[in-house]
Amino acid sequence: MKTLVIISHPRKNSLTFAVSNEIIRGLEEQNHEIEILDLHENNFDPLVFPVDEPDYSDESKVYSDVVENEMNRIRNVDNIIFVFPVWWHSIPAMLKGYIDRVFNYGFAYGSNKLPVEKIRWIGLAGEPRSSFKKRGFHLNIEHHLNIGISGFVGVEDSEVELIYETLGEEVPEEKLEKHYAEIFNRSYLIGKEI
Amino acid sequence: MKTLVIISHPRKNSLTFAVSNEIIRGLEEQNHEIEILDLHENNFDPLVFPVDEPDYSDESKVYSDVVENEMNRIRNVDNIIFVFPVWWHSIPAMLKGYIDRVFNYGFAYGSNKLPVEKIRWIGLAGEPRSSFKKRGFHLNIEHHLNIGISGFVGVEDSEVELIYETLGEEVPEEKLEKHYAEIFNRSYLIGKEI
Repeated sequence: MKTLVIISHPRKNSLTFAVSNEIIRGLEEQNHEIEILDLHENNFDPLVFPVDEPDYSDESKVYSDVVENEMNRIRNVDNIIFVFPVWWHSIPAMLKGYIDRVFNYGFAYGSNKLPVEKIRWIGLAGEPRSSFKKRGFHLNIEHHLNIGISGFVGVEDSEVELIYETLGEEVPEEKLEKHYAEIFNRSYLIGKEI
Repeated sequence: MKTLVIISHPRKNSLTFAVSNEIIRGLEEQNHEIEILDLHENNFDPLVFPVDEPDYSDESKVYSDVVENEMNRIRNVDNIIFVFPVWWHSIPAMLKGYIDRVFNYGFAYGSNKLPVEKIRWIGLAGEPRSSFKKRGFHLNIEHHLNIGISGFVGVEDSEVELIYETLGEEVPEEKLEKHYAEIFNRSYLIGKEI
């Protein structure tokens, strides 16, 4: 089993990377082969230029080298785990641009489906769970990612896992250590149980 | 009354630009002062680097020159109209990155609210209305943009207008002209009635 972990954060010392490392530890425990794609380190450009616009009259359109390479990377794995900060109750522009460009016509939809078994969307939200859920933002992002994206590319096994209160602002001082220990343990289990 | 029209499409010959022109015609009819921001032409970079990450301990953080300039542009208008293609049932990475960077802490939320009266989100969806609405994608994008973004920055008067079937794939040949005439008329009215 081979799993691609796609990380979208501008800083290596971010909680997003720390969570990714725990997910990877869980994957190793399962003896998954692991490939890591750090979008910022790779200088991935999130913008769609005409060369990567779909041509609905030509399913075999050849896209830019960068996009074709990313498609090949996906062809070579069984699962994708996206790890990202939740910005504006959604995915960051970097990750949105990865989807805009790589999940393209003829490869991910049209006659084909995205050639992976499972997708996991692991989002780190600064907000506390209560204010996020009160306004239905968890349902909103789940619908968008599971139905609007994974569903559209034909991947049935797709789950969104939200990790809340990553800023720890409303966590009492004496509970902070436990708060982050739980976040890391949960991340490990995400990798172990995929 | 001054209105900022923010356009996010890689091609000037796109329907997104044609729709924008009709919106602008409607605004002119009302004698709005108009400012246009073409994100692609301006080479706006949608990525958040650490210089533009919010510092929640410092509401008066000074951001990058590009971001500070965009904040000043907003301080100088009454309304914002975003015009964009709906990609993956959401806004394109370019526009997401504009929000990620410019709607920042201390300027758009925190003690302040975004200093505009009205926001309009005009999305052009290739899909037919029926398949889009059947899966609740219209509710999803409305909730995200009106509540998750405009609501978060304190702008009460926010509306999403979706223009469907912009590819015209399921429109019979003899009705295509009327289809696009209706799209343009509706766009004109969006500008005229804001």
